[in-house]
Amino acid sequence: MSAKILVINCGSSSLKYEIYEMPERNSLGKGIIERIGEPLGVLRQESAAGVLESSRQVKNHEEAIAAMGSMLIDGNKGIVSSLSEISGVGHRVVHGGEECTSSVLIDEHVRSIIRKNIELAPLHNPANLAGIEEVSKLLPRCSHVAVFDTSFHQTMPPAAYLYGLPRELYDKYKIRRYGFHGTSHRYVAAEAVKLCKRSMENTNIISCHLGNGASITAIAHGVSIDTSMGFTPLEGLMMGTRSGDIDPAIIFFLLERGYTEKDLNDMLNKKSGLLGLSGISNDLRDLEAAVERGDSNAKEALEVYAYRIRKYIGAYAANIVKVDILVFTGGIGTHGFRMRERICHRLENLGMFMDYSKNKDNGSMKAVISTPFSPITIAVIPTNEELQIAVDAFDILFKAP
Amino acid sequence: MSAKILVINCGSSSLKYEIYEMPERNSLGKGIIERIGEPLGVLRQESAAGVLESSRQVKNHEEAIAAMGSMLIDGNKGIVSSLSEISGVGHRVVHGGEECTSSVLIDEHVRSIIRKNIELAPLHNPANLAGIEEVSKLLPRCSHVAVFDTSFHQTMPPAAYLYGLPRELYDKYKIRRYGFHGTSHRYVAAEAVKLCKRSMENTNIISCHLGNGASITAIAHGVSIDTSMGFTPLEGLMMGTRSGDIDPAIIFFLLERGYTEKDLNDMLNKKSGLLGLSGISNDLRDLEAAVERGDSNAKEALEVYAYRIRKYIGAYAANIVKVDILVFTGGIGTHGFRMRERICHRLENLGMFMDYSKNKDNGSMKAVISTPFSPITIAVIPTNEELQIAVDAFDILFKAP
Repeated sequence: MSAKILVINCGSSSLKYEIYEMPERNSLGKGIIERIGEPLGVLRQESAAGVLESSRQVKNHEEAIAAMGSMLIDGNKGIVSSLSEISGVGHRVVHGGEECTSSVLIDEHVRSIIRKNIELAPLHNPANLAGIEEVSKLLPRCSHVAVFDTSFHQTMPPAAYLYGLPRELYDKYKIRRYGFHGTSHRYVAAEAVKLCKRSMENTNIISCHLGNGASITAIAHGVSIDTSMGFTPLEGLMMGTRSGDIDPAIIFFLLERGYTEKDLNDMLNKKSGLLGLSGISNDLRDLEAAVERGDSNAKEALEVYAYRIRKYIGAYAANIVKVDILVFTGGIGTHGFRMRERICHRLENLGMFMDYSKNKDNGSMKAVISTPFSPITIAVIPTNEELQIAVDAFDILFKAP
Repeated sequence: MSAKILVINCGSSSLKYEIYEMPERNSLGKGIIERIGEPLGVLRQESAAGVLESSRQVKNHEEAIAAMGSMLIDGNKGIVSSLSEISGVGHRVVHGGEECTSSVLIDEHVRSIIRKNIELAPLHNPANLAGIEEVSKLLPRCSHVAVFDTSFHQTMPPAAYLYGLPRELYDKYKIRRYGFHGTSHRYVAAEAVKLCKRSMENTNIISCHLGNGASITAIAHGVSIDTSMGFTPLEGLMMGTRSGDIDPAIIFFLLERGYTEKDLNDMLNKKSGLLGLSGISNDLRDLEAAVERGDSNAKEALEVYAYRIRKYIGAYAANIVKVDILVFTGGIGTHGFRMRERICHRLENLGMFMDYSKNKDNGSMKAVISTPFSPITIAVIPTNEELQIAVDAFDILFKAP
């Protein structure tokens, strides 16, 4: 049986959606509505029927979902002829806390968990909930599934998820490592296992999701055993504009020198990382171009970026008996062949031998980029979180348990 | 030529000293004065002549140094007959900033550097400076040498010492990784090379200093290339009462919930780590006993402790072409055989094969505790920072350049 699944990724000021035909995994079309709540919203939808584009005010999530409903069934360039063709919805939800260990059919209890976890994801969970509410009104006869960024990492052992903090902070506020990007890490791990013709049960993977946000996950026999993002997405790797790991005492040092809490929170999340250290851009392409021009700050920023990734790869390799596959995904992981080279050119001692020609000529395709004799396979796997959400929704709604 | 070198470690409320006969490396005696500035100070000196003990008020560093002067030449239990026997002084100084890349003869310029770096070590450098001033008055004809906790790590490359922060924080405040425990890491690295009959130039070492404070250093061909403590000693490994690495966003989360900056600074430095996570103690022996009794919080605390050390060992191994020696030192590193086992029992995939019997029977002695076929040698090396300070002072004052 075939079914059309609508995938919803509802952020605080944007809505992304896509319709997949399942189980064939065909994308029928997708759209994005940006600048929700601003004076002028931007709407765009594309499918085999063509591109729909417009600019007009979209006041809130209710109006955004209504606009999506109209665009989906547009007379000329719609994706479906009637909303009743849609038989299930998968929603991206950022934070499922400790309660949500896998994707799940949304009911009142699940909504209350997402609501409760607003404390842990104050910017994301409210928008995710608004998306669930409004799409439920638009498609009242559909069942809805929640797919969490955090749930894949709920298999981490306490040694990986506990911080060296007074235990009452865990008991009272649930301060612990959660990790994010779980849907992406899970998707690329499954694709890597297929590509290498292995079974998940007998495979250990280190997965590097390098986009504007970035995280690394250690996956043993299909389950996440550690990941670099922590209580929030700020921890771990240096990112486009986020600092990643720093000495926490730096915050006290700067508070004493007149920076406010808000200054610092903003700085660490929006003005740090590649952007802050290079002083140029958070876009890898700009920085590679600057390095070509001889810019030493850009060069150092890229070296710090690569070095910190290597540190995490080593840290996880030390805790996995035998790593089988190193995966690169995300914008930088998929397209940034120079950065992949920078990361891997010293990892031979871990058994990771890159084929530098294959790496350079890869063209952002799913492929193995290590040498035939490399003990550990290195692979590029473009991620597709929307497809994974569609798969989860289809499996929960239409597959016999 | 033989010389008596006085080693001074002057903290904010304590003074430790020791006299070494150099180049023979014989300790002639040592002393400690604690609770300086409190109503009742505690003074103790021991040498072959016997133990001197007393309790009385020691108002400040001036009085502490004067008391040391009297005890050193005590008629019955003194260490020297006259202060004029002392021919050089080595001072431990915590922070030498970027200026001090090795131990150095103290002159007005060096004093001004130590003074300038009070900003980076507000608790330590003022006491270190007071020690230099007062001992200079006591021994005006001696030359004085400063030995910095930070200087050994000044060889780190930018990829290791730069944070992913806006570059102006480095330019303006010199916010970067400095690292500490340098004197200890340098000492045990040299001892390990001797023990293994190797040359420093051809040896790569990962050195774990595990005391109440704890840090790991990667040493390639004799120079530090990375270390886990950062801008301050708070970063890196989980320690006795310090958190080590956390998601920096946890600080903002708790500030929003009414914790003050002071609460948090105190908590992360004094109430976290093994103490906070176990809720029992920061002393490894207490925690091992609690694990024996079946205490699950103590067990988790020790697992987190070991796991984080393994992560750093892996991180550094990934950035060293071939690790030759893994060194354990510091109170826990030297005496905690169960903890060493906990750390090493999963490091075989990195080529580190512990001999579990040798490890258990080690008795805190300098020794190799890996199997004969282990590609990487594992060694226990008791540290001796005072001796290293005496060596540096002797070399600078009495060896031809």
